[in-house]
Amino acid sequence: MTTDEKFMRQALLEAEKALWAEEVPIGAVIVLKDKIIARGYNQTEMLNDCTAHAEMIALTSAFNFLGSKYLPDAALYVTIEPCLMCAGALYWSKMGRVIYGADDEKNGYKKTTGKISPFHPKTKITAGLLHEECKKLIKDFFKQRRK
Amino acid sequence: MTTDEKFMRQALLEAEKALWAEEVPIGAVIVLKDKIIARGYNQTEMLNDCTAHAEMIALTSAFNFLGSKYLPDAALYVTIEPCLMCAGALYWSKMGRVIYGADDEKNGYKKTTGKISPFHPKTKITAGLLHEECKKLIKDFFKQRRK
Repeated sequence: MTTDEKFMRQALLEAEKALWAEEVPIGAVIVLKDKIIARGYNQTEMLNDCTAHAEMIALTSAFNFLGSKYLPDAALYVTIEPCLMCAGALYWSKMGRVIYGADDEKNGYKKTTGKISPFHPKTKITAGLLHEECKKLIKDFFKQRRK
Repeated sequence: MTTDEKFMRQALLEAEKALWAEEVPIGAVIVLKDKIIARGYNQTEMLNDCTAHAEMIALTSAFNFLGSKYLPDAALYVTIEPCLMCAGALYWSKMGRVIYGADDEKNGYKKTTGKISPFHPKTKITAGLLHEECKKLIKDFFKQRRK
């Protein structure tokens, strides 16, 4: 297992926490120097706040932990392509790397930004890591809900 | 004074609170049925969190106040053009109207999204309200900081 896969599996664990809480299962972790410094999962229902995405929760947690509002040396792993809001938040954070699993055709940032990257120019993006597992969690969730 | 101007003046008061706290002076209020239900000003320095924009703070406050995570009948007044993150958050909130003051050429949402609106299809946008006063607060702040 590569290091990236190892951390994406942790993001998947966060997504499973969301699933248990009957939230859309998306999870994220933020890694600095090979250590997880923050975790987050989608809590929009629980907090009654449509901005409480996994990435936003992990970001605020990382800022608090480090006492810094920029994370140029950190990496954020998230199971699904960030939405426009989360991409904008990652821009402000100057995140070093963003690694995401499955594309989100409906609400992913690429739908709106097209070829223009919404991220900080120094942010490196890796897409598609463990995308099948990441997507399956979401698909199964919505299939179950429609029953 | 129009109703819109009245509420934008309240957003300007919020921006002045930010100024007092030595934050970039941007303020927002959320209005429902002619009443202010939430206020926010930029607190990125105070909270050490680059996502603590006026709009995000006002949104979370409004969700908490109403116990609802959608605001289709509300209006958000903000002194400066929202950034991509805040535009994305407003999308999720399904905000009825967004009224902003001055354009933000550097970090406003339009820089990245171009002709594609990042907002919910039903959100009505009004730009440029009291834009000179809104811009002046920011300009004076940066002029002072450079001294």
